[in-house]
Amino acid sequence: MSGVHVLPLEGIAEMTPGDDLGRALGDAVERAGGLRDGDVLVVAQKLVSKAEGRVERADDPVRVILREARAVRRRRGDLVIAETEHGFVCASAGVDRSNAPGDGWLVLLPRDPDASAAGIRAALGERFGTAPAVVVSDSFGRAWRQGTTDVAIGVSGMAPLLDLRGTRDARGYELRSTVVAVADELAGAAELVMGKARGVPAALVRGYRVPAGDGSARELVMPPERDLFR
Amino acid sequence: MSGVHVLPLEGIAEMTPGDDLGRALGDAVERAGGLRDGDVLVVAQKLVSKAEGRVERADDPVRVILREARAVRRRRGDLVIAETEHGFVCASAGVDRSNAPGDGWLVLLPRDPDASAAGIRAALGERFGTAPAVVVSDSFGRAWRQGTTDVAIGVSGMAPLLDLRGTRDARGYELRSTVVAVADELAGAAELVMGKARGVPAALVRGYRVPAGDGSARELVMPPERDLFR
Repeated sequence: MSGVHVLPLEGIAEMTPGDDLGRALGDAVERAGGLRDGDVLVVAQKLVSKAEGRVERADDPVRVILREARAVRRRRGDLVIAETEHGFVCASAGVDRSNAPGDGWLVLLPRDPDASAAGIRAALGERFGTAPAVVVSDSFGRAWRQGTTDVAIGVSGMAPLLDLRGTRDARGYELRSTVVAVADELAGAAELVMGKARGVPAALVRGYRVPAGDGSARELVMPPERDLFR
Repeated sequence: MSGVHVLPLEGIAEMTPGDDLGRALGDAVERAGGLRDGDVLVVAQKLVSKAEGRVERADDPVRVILREARAVRRRRGDLVIAETEHGFVCASAGVDRSNAPGDGWLVLLPRDPDASAAGIRAALGERFGTAPAVVVSDSFGRAWRQGTTDVAIGVSGMAPLLDLRGTRDARGYELRSTVVAVADELAGAAELVMGKARGVPAALVRGYRVPAGDGSARELVMPPERDLFR
């Protein structure tokens, strides 16, 4: 069937530090019928962080947020919009209490989400004989718009941006300023079947041809001097 | 099959002012096998605008952009980040030259994209006996992040935001600050099969249960006093 199919990966157990996430994801992929060439695996940051031990018990979450931040961009009381060490700008520097391992616990972003994605990609490639592109996703708020959307904070086996500059439209005119953040759109598409409250921490996106390349989600960070929207 | 399926709607001809967009979309849906209960139709703003005659020949695009803007938020030469009459903040107030009807022509945003969506929804509901939720989409740049993603500028037959406040996570903890802009994620998912250069101006999203309600895409506009990201 043509088009893009987004399959939830269900039955993945909670991770604790040191658990083999690649194996757990591989088991879930197998339950979903296996991997096909060109599949993209999207996995929620929180699952990755827990497997990597990026959890912390803290009485003062704001202290942890400020420690995890490279820069505080906006602040109103305990609400902090921060730039993370990776360069991402998001609420609380990505530090979150929901779906944490327990009361008083926080989940932090992976130290190197691209490397997390690469590790998962390698594990699945070895098991299935074909390596999926991997996106590590998180829910970010946005400027100007209400609500969060899931975006990519780590990628492996793909370029996160589809650069159409120089491409022509259907009438033959050159498209201008057309760089599409497809890794973010893949993360958002996966969120439609994942969902925070549903306990589905990963999904397969099938039938989408990712932009070739071995990119980094840091390419999704807008250089300040070019950012007219902030 | 479980999961969410995004089907491209192909073979839709260019629209000129006064063309029957509902019929053209209905024909494309029929070619794709018809409509099912719960389907979401995503249609590119440009197609809608052309059918509605929101095109204009202009020697000075910046003049048109400034006229279409309710407020200019940022400006660097000809690059204008503007708030549209609808409240959306985007490049050039949504005015675009690519995929325009001809050289020197511009495509403007629909005057009332929710009404555009409602019209399409009614036409398809009458034809197929089940009315899809409809999203009118456009490609917007973002603050802090590189690249555009497709977002919703008009909706009908759904609430654009999924409000999970008060919902509990898998461990029983209440989720905080969890309002998901699912209409934007639907638009982004559809973009994966549409694409500016591929001439596919619409898609069906099947298998996603939209938040019930008769909402407006204007709910996606963040009230300034609550916007910490801008």
